[in-house]
Amino acid sequence: MIYADNAATTKVSHRVLEAMLPYWEEYYGNPSSLYEFGQKAKEALEDARERIAKCMGCEAREITFTSGGSEADNQAIRTAAAIGAEAGRKHILSTAFEHHAVLHTLEALRKEGYEITLLDVHENGIITPEQVAEAIRPDTCLVTVMYANNEIGTIQPIGQIGAICRERGVLFHTDAVQAVGHIPVDVREQNIDMLSLSAHKFHGPKGVGVLYARKGIRLGSVIYGGAQERGKRAGTENVPAIVGMAVALEEACGRLAQDTETVRKLRDQLIDGLGRIPYSELNGDREHRLPGNVNYCFEGIEGESLLLLLDDKGICASSGSACTSGSLDPSHVLLAIGRPHEVAHGSLRLTINEETTEADVDYMIQAVSDVVDYLRNMSPFWRDLVEGKRSHVFAP
Amino acid sequence: MIYADNAATTKVSHRVLEAMLPYWEEYYGNPSSLYEFGQKAKEALEDARERIAKCMGCEAREITFTSGGSEADNQAIRTAAAIGAEAGRKHILSTAFEHHAVLHTLEALRKEGYEITLLDVHENGIITPEQVAEAIRPDTCLVTVMYANNEIGTIQPIGQIGAICRERGVLFHTDAVQAVGHIPVDVREQNIDMLSLSAHKFHGPKGVGVLYARKGIRLGSVIYGGAQERGKRAGTENVPAIVGMAVALEEACGRLAQDTETVRKLRDQLIDGLGRIPYSELNGDREHRLPGNVNYCFEGIEGESLLLLLDDKGICASSGSACTSGSLDPSHVLLAIGRPHEVAHGSLRLTINEETTEADVDYMIQAVSDVVDYLRNMSPFWRDLVEGKRSHVFAP
Repeated sequence: MIYADNAATTKVSHRVLEAMLPYWEEYYGNPSSLYEFGQKAKEALEDARERIAKCMGCEAREITFTSGGSEADNQAIRTAAAIGAEAGRKHILSTAFEHHAVLHTLEALRKEGYEITLLDVHENGIITPEQVAEAIRPDTCLVTVMYANNEIGTIQPIGQIGAICRERGVLFHTDAVQAVGHIPVDVREQNIDMLSLSAHKFHGPKGVGVLYARKGIRLGSVIYGGAQERGKRAGTENVPAIVGMAVALEEACGRLAQDTETVRKLRDQLIDGLGRIPYSELNGDREHRLPGNVNYCFEGIEGESLLLLLDDKGICASSGSACTSGSLDPSHVLLAIGRPHEVAHGSLRLTINEETTEADVDYMIQAVSDVVDYLRNMSPFWRDLVEGKRSHVFAP
Repeated sequence: MIYADNAATTKVSHRVLEAMLPYWEEYYGNPSSLYEFGQKAKEALEDARERIAKCMGCEAREITFTSGGSEADNQAIRTAAAIGAEAGRKHILSTAFEHHAVLHTLEALRKEGYEITLLDVHENGIITPEQVAEAIRPDTCLVTVMYANNEIGTIQPIGQIGAICRERGVLFHTDAVQAVGHIPVDVREQNIDMLSLSAHKFHGPKGVGVLYARKGIRLGSVIYGGAQERGKRAGTENVPAIVGMAVALEEACGRLAQDTETVRKLRDQLIDGLGRIPYSELNGDREHRLPGNVNYCFEGIEGESLLLLLDDKGICASSGSACTSGSLDPSHVLLAIGRPHEVAHGSLRLTINEETTEADVDYMIQAVSDVVDYLRNMSPFWRDLVEGKRSHVFAP
């Protein structure tokens, strides 16, 4: 099996698992308890917080543990919305190709009386700092732009957007779920006020994430209850998962430079190989993209059939976000970068990592080429294209 | 070490850990993906849902996975509040001794324009069905009463309260975090509309819980985003933890009758032994209480010192909820059952389980007696009591 869906989730690293193990059966105490046994869990929790903060370039007290990236996104956006409302500022600026954890939270806020502007995305999948600068209004309370897109992997100019927001006195949040552990992230340098991350995207466990919030930002709660996380996130702390997340982040950041080099080279081979398939096009900018992300549209192809046939050939791939795979709608990301509906339905996302080999890449190129060929040969839609009854969207 | 704080959290059972292990390194796929490898995770998820539903006496589709009990409480209460608001019913009925996950959510709703009634609690720690019946108003949209109190372990007449709510057409939620896996719970029989539980209270992992919601109740979201959990709870499903929770619940429910018998007997020995300490009183009804819960107030004692000295003697205990252990305020639960401030500060909760032995119980009785004696002898407050300058609250 070739696992090429690392943007959906990753295998937990063995070192991560080993680091978690003692906290289920041995040091299982509640970190909020007074006795020494609980304090061992508390120390592990705070040690993890320190180590994660170090990887992010921030202070430990700026780290709040959540159940994952979605919760962190919800909490960041609701925090800024509440702070904005107090100052009479109820406009939020975001982009059309955010993850649904951002878009659906914004949709909920719209119903609560906020005004939401979603920036159009250039066909290269990148938002420009100028777009942000132009769209900020006196009543804007939050700019939220994802660090790297989860489907097409394009990396946004976060540092420049952060500088603009800081200068204009607007809070800036970034959903960095796909970025952290894969490309360098420094919250101070990039003027990021709030940032969301999720451990299972970089070989950590599922069910745990982080909301970074710059000190001075009064976090609001999404989950009310006990006084855990300085009263900002109720619920017994998930100590084993938090410990595992710290180890995973250190591992990922420690070998980032080296992994990036290897993975990017394989990614480019994969991009080149798939580019030889006629009437195909890479989605998103080739240079400013995550080292492991390849996302193609193939004309005349229905994405689901493509995935199922690739699965038969032992390749785990997706058409876009796993979070919406049950949906029949084409990807909102591909529509945002201007792909027409009929092409957006024929997308393929392959997200490789440091375990992917050159042989895997060669195999994937061959398999995708064969399957695309096979599907086109049996498609009436494709016949229409070949016979000139329809016109092509892409160049041959 | 004697671990007597099982109401705060429990050790993960070894069978639970073994059941979780394959889902981190082997079947780590995202359950929302199309390929067979992801479907294996999906099957595990749905199998866990079925098994949990069976233990609860409900259908699988009535189970929504959350990050724990606090999130489930938040979601249940916000769901009922939103449904109520649509019908112009904005009154919520609860009790003064709920967990903070309930109380603080209600406090947030109060600020949003809801009216909240908190029922007084009888000194035995039990709410009567009559109290609920009398307090329900035409505009009541929700009754939320905990199944068993997390500090004093008293069990509420949930079935009778459920019947009243059903008859009056009011949604009924119960925070059953302390009850599930420890005493029989049947959502159908007891007319429960919504119920929260948390895996780490019955030897499952931290960071995962369930919101049961009777079919027909349109759940609202607390965490917006992807379409997981039928669109009601966004975020990649925590498959290993969910699998572990199912095993833990089956284990707990399977040996419930037998454990209850053993644990209750030890609990009663502990209650009797500690009752011989002068000027002490059991908090909460002796009969209608969780099999493993012992909670005492000792006159002239400061709870924190008591816990630290017991820790020196190898006993892990708490004064009340771990969620608020950082707080200097006396327990809201003990105040709710009418304990005066000076006594409420001197509380001790020992929560034992099926691994506790008779020798442990004997040791705890001796240790607590010694420590209470020691602390009283050095307390000016106690001297005042002995010299008649203050009057006792409890009988000798």
